[in-house]
Amino acid sequence: MFAPLLQNLRDRQPLVHAITNYVTANDCANLLLACGASPVMADDPDDAPQITAHAGGLVLNLGTLHRGTIPAMLACGRIAAQRGLPVVLDPVGVGASTLRTDTALQLLREVPIAVIRGNLSEVETLTRGHGGAPGVDSTQSITPDNLEGCGALARELARRTGAVVALTGAVDLVTDGDTLYCLHNGHPMMGSVTGTGCQLSCLVGAFAAANPDSLLSATAAAVSAMGLCGEIAHRRLGPEDGNGSYRTYLLDAVYRLTPDQLEKGARYELR
Amino acid sequence: MFAPLLQNLRDRQPLVHAITNYVTANDCANLLLACGASPVMADDPDDAPQITAHAGGLVLNLGTLHRGTIPAMLACGRIAAQRGLPVVLDPVGVGASTLRTDTALQLLREVPIAVIRGNLSEVETLTRGHGGAPGVDSTQSITPDNLEGCGALARELARRTGAVVALTGAVDLVTDGDTLYCLHNGHPMMGSVTGTGCQLSCLVGAFAAANPDSLLSATAAAVSAMGLCGEIAHRRLGPEDGNGSYRTYLLDAVYRLTPDQLEKGARYELR
Amino acid sequence: MFAPLLQNLRDRQPLVHAITNYVTANDCANLLLACGASPVMADDPDDAPQITAHAGGLVLNLGTLHRGTIPAMLACGRIAAQRGLPVVLDPVGVGASTLRTDTALQLLREVPIAVIRGNLSEVETLTRGHGGAPGVDSTQSITPDNLEGCGALARELARRTGAVVALTGAVDLVTDGDTLYCLHNGHPMMGSVTGTGCQLSCLVGAFAAANPDSLLSATAAAVSAMGLCGEIAHRRLGPEDGNGSYRTYLLDAVYRLTPDQLEKGARYELR
Repeated sequence: MFAPLLQNLRDRQPLVHAITNYVTANDCANLLLACGASPVMADDPDDAPQITAHAGGLVLNLGTLHRGTIPAMLACGRIAAQRGLPVVLDPVGVGASTLRTDTALQLLREVPIAVIRGNLSEVETLTRGHGGAPGVDSTQSITPDNLEGCGALARELARRTGAVVALTGAVDLVTDGDTLYCLHNGHPMMGSVTGTGCQLSCLVGAFAAANPDSLLSATAAAVSAMGLCGEIAHRRLGPEDGNGSYRTYLLDAVYRLTPDQLEKGARYELR
Repeated sequence: MFAPLLQNLRDRQPLVHAITNYVTANDCANLLLACGASPVMADDPDDAPQITAHAGGLVLNLGTLHRGTIPAMLACGRIAAQRGLPVVLDPVGVGASTLRTDTALQLLREVPIAVIRGNLSEVETLTRGHGGAPGVDSTQSITPDNLEGCGALARELARRTGAVVALTGAVDLVTDGDTLYCLHNGHPMMGSVTGTGCQLSCLVGAFAAANPDSLLSATAAAVSAMGLCGEIAHRRLGPEDGNGSYRTYLLDAVYRLTPDQLEKGARYELR
Repeated sequence: MFAPLLQNLRDRQPLVHAITNYVTANDCANLLLACGASPVMADDPDDAPQITAHAGGLVLNLGTLHRGTIPAMLACGRIAAQRGLPVVLDPVGVGASTLRTDTALQLLREVPIAVIRGNLSEVETLTRGHGGAPGVDSTQSITPDNLEGCGALARELARRTGAVVALTGAVDLVTDGDTLYCLHNGHPMMGSVTGTGCQLSCLVGAFAAANPDSLLSATAAAVSAMGLCGEIAHRRLGPEDGNGSYRTYLLDAVYRLTPDQLEKGARYELR
């Protein structure tokens, strides 16, 4: 079921505008190229809205948030709304600072967010108004043991916001508030490369831009694809390889991923 | 003919000051180190001009342009003019936003630009005042079929600005308004790595800083060297390698490139 | 003697807040993950202090310094002081511009810096109030020939500031003003990858955060570990590998480094 969604992405090559942090921007751009999309980054309020006007999708990432960038996020969100573009929100580190929490909540109020992609503490903060996010490369979070509660949390945020919610961790959940995908691809070593979450949010943006009428399954396909690539990259590791090589192999795997490979490798159930 | 220009670069190890975007800054710095130059990045108006005063060349790149950086670009351009340093302009995404177009035109008016390095839509915008640049990693552009018109366009921009113009794409053109190099090195996969254009502009800056009296041939040599490295990197790809590995192999190829290899591998004609 | 310090780092996995330049931020984050720490980057004055409040250590790096970031550095430094967190200062390019020199001196006055990590010209500038730093990836600096004078310089800066000083180059010195480690690990090719100095400063921050009561030996262990990884990475280079692959192998080596390997590979004497 995910194969045609990836095929659409490869065929349509959407331009994805990402307002994202400077730590992982290069990997995000290369990830977008790897999956078949085309990246463009711009975050000055005088520049970014015109860039969104050319794009097929918009990704807003709160890592290394600067106060001066917030007006650009809002303005680009409005352009996206006018043009019907899917907007992905990655609330990096929400809960760890007031600026990030306030900005995420403002974006949810003022911009029609299509997909929210975050880890457990970020999704918890957006849903309950509190939560803890000490780091941004958190690996402890959603696990097989707290799946029930996490599913309820993700559904609640989806219903309240109207967005598809992707709550990612050792297990990944994707829901529109009703249907819930429970996805089992991925490898713990993904947490040893900075920005795999940011990259996933961009991949979601690319899948959404290429499949704007199937946001739920497009998001689930992106989450599954990233996790599958994490597995493929891990199988390739040699005895001297560490997170440097793994970072490269991840991009390589996304570049080489075929619709057929995704179809066969995706492991998930609907709940 | 290109060999001594690369040899000069390896011998003189110029310090190149780049004001460039945060997406590709790391690759630009490593590219400069790979070719034998030394990189320095600084873009605050209170910091950057003093940095230019130590440098042998200046590269101005409009990717992720911030309004606050423009005064730094202008001030550094003035220092470069006073000291006779070659200035390379990479008008990333010009035509896609008013801020980028206005800034590029202002830089052309107020700073003595030595070399302009852009793709077809960027060169078109600077020459005709209009053009379309939906993405910044555009691969469609100049081809064997529109070579005649592209040559006229590049010559026109070179004559009007006094700069050497490098119009790059599937074929690359380098001209001072009179002599026109038509260069045939390169590989389409270079378009699947973000910032190969930015890296090329830095390589041009390094070649120009090491060969300030031969700007036309230095620019052609840089364009040829980058393309040749794209070919070398492509031959190295294994069955699991994608754009992640290709990015690494590109840097490796620049690091290993010898003057003799460049001399033998360069494919071009003068028109 | 360094083994338990690395073991503590692997066990305690400290969160390290880095305010660092956009050129090398990605490598710094991956280096922190490679060594077992967890990275977080934030530099907006409205965001960063709350991030420091969650962290176990703080790294302040002056590369691509922006005037707007200075209040964040000062505010985060005050939080770190209140909470007793070790603060590492990497005075990138100090001496090359007034803004960088003034900012470094202000930080030394207003923030209790635990460790200063710089090259010869940077340490000279901080100690004598003058010095030359044309580039930031300088490889010429401290050598076996000027070791005596460099040792005196590092000791003087340590005594004056109360910080541990790591003066790094072809040979590395680490001192608290009294004891002086003279360390001989490393490889010249580390100078061909941008930001190995920034990465080392983050590694120092991680070792210090995990060993706050042993700052001198923790700093020496970090310097030795980075140099040893530079040697391991160099042994791995194939005939086509250049600085692109070397960059990856460096991270891999840090990821794979064991306490036992560090203990056996560290080469240093006390003076």
